[in-house]
Amino acid sequence: MQSFRLLLEYDGRDFKGWQIQPGAKRTVQRCLEEAVERICGRADSLIGSGRTDSGVHAQGQVVSLRVDTPLDAGQFQRALNGNLPRDIVVLSVEAVPRDFDARRHAVSKCYRYTVWNARLRSPLRAARSAHIPVPLDVEAMLKAAERLEGEHDFACFRAAGSDVESTIRSLYRAEVRGRAGEEIVFEFNGSGFLRHMVRNIVGTLVEVGRGARSPESIEALLASRNRAEAGPTAPAEGLVLVAVSYPTPAGEFQESIENSEPSGPAKA
Amino acid sequence: MQSFRLLLEYDGRDFKGWQIQPGAKRTVQRCLEEAVERICGRADSLIGSGRTDSGVHAQGQVVSLRVDTPLDAGQFQRALNGNLPRDIVVLSVEAVPRDFDARRHAVSKCYRYTVWNARLRSPLRAARSAHIPVPLDVEAMLKAAERLEGEHDFACFRAAGSDVESTIRSLYRAEVRGRAGEEIVFEFNGSGFLRHMVRNIVGTLVEVGRGARSPESIEALLASRNRAEAGPTAPAEGLVLVAVSYPTPAGEFQESIENSEPSGPAKA
Repeated sequence: MQSFRLLLEYDGRDFKGWQIQPGAKRTVQRCLEEAVERICGRADSLIGSGRTDSGVHAQGQVVSLRVDTPLDAGQFQRALNGNLPRDIVVLSVEAVPRDFDARRHAVSKCYRYTVWNARLRSPLRAARSAHIPVPLDVEAMLKAAERLEGEHDFACFRAAGSDVESTIRSLYRAEVRGRAGEEIVFEFNGSGFLRHMVRNIVGTLVEVGRGARSPESIEALLASRNRAEAGPTAPAEGLVLVAVSYPTPAGEFQESIENSEPSGPAKA
Repeated sequence: MQSFRLLLEYDGRDFKGWQIQPGAKRTVQRCLEEAVERICGRADSLIGSGRTDSGVHAQGQVVSLRVDTPLDAGQFQRALNGNLPRDIVVLSVEAVPRDFDARRHAVSKCYRYTVWNARLRSPLRAARSAHIPVPLDVEAMLKAAERLEGEHDFACFRAAGSDVESTIRSLYRAEVRGRAGEEIVFEFNGSGFLRHMVRNIVGTLVEVGRGARSPESIEALLASRNRAEAGPTAPAEGLVLVAVSYPTPAGEFQESIENSEPSGPAKA
């Protein structure tokens, strides 16, 4: 048995999310498992760093798995890419210690959310951004976002009905860039994210951006721990899992990918 | 009857091109005609500046039409956008003189072609670019492109089997930007383009980029007037009709849109 770490890019549009579900639903995990099975039989403990939801994209999803194969990392990558559908690609494969677990060992994740903030929808941008026609105050959203940074109880942003042990997370960085009438990009880097947390934060920041809520109200919102007090869940198509970080053997952080653009340059 | 000029953005992926065809094929022109008919009955002489092929995108297609409606330009635009599918949007509507013809009056067009020049395909870019895994020499492609500028007989780049009266066109500008291992963008501005001409030029420039053809060979290729001498047709998904220009009443050129990014900023 060999242990590998995979770096994945996928277009979430035609997937019912990451996680294998009952029934014949097309999920990223199912497509990946099927590709692995065609190459070398059943994978042992195939685990994603997190479960992206239906329609959410990834340019840096990390997966750990154990397989019984004579292939080395490079050969395994080529075999996978030859067996995966066009909307998933394995950007890299690395041999890792036997106990590496993409979910448990992740120390931080970075998500990006894109809003097309223009009066008219844009068909050429629709697959990668959410359209919000009312002009948004970027500075106010940034002020609100900064109040989310740090260790907080993010219970008000968790998906309704979800039930996790702790809702305390650390948000290392919350950024808002761009300007009204153009593309606005939200970026979040944190220790971990509750289900729908990023999209619920964006939905809330958008309320700040259109003046329906003040940046100063964020503290009271966090304190409320009440999902009903926060804004709506922003649509899935604007969200991308950009990168997942792991401690290096020396104990330092290591980004799953280094640049923030979709899939890195060729080493051709 | 009123005459209008429409500026359209569309995602070409799910269309069988611009032109209405026999049978029930989904084309941009058909969707637009159906929307017009729902609003104000049959349109008279609905004409696009050119017929984009199946899968080709537009961020600045121009359409002329005459309709019998009490709506003004702004009301007509809103009604159209309310009746069009999500992959088409009318960016602007303008009242024009009765005889305005989007095809005959066009004085130049601008097309952009995007190549993802990396070893691995990129699912997040696949809808808007063609993937070419071998490293391309951008400087050589630019040298070759410059030899296409000016008035030439472009017969070698016309679609096989197409039969037009003249194959002489003026290419005002042919640019190649980017670098191997990343996104490479080709831009062409000319008096008019033969069917498949841009994609055949790109297919030929790519052969130059991978060293299979020299920049200096372009003159002989043009002189051959032989489609079989040129490179293959590059795939449709990388191509966008960016803008179409018309003479202003004062006789000056006027770009259909001013910036080169998909759909302009909101006037929110």
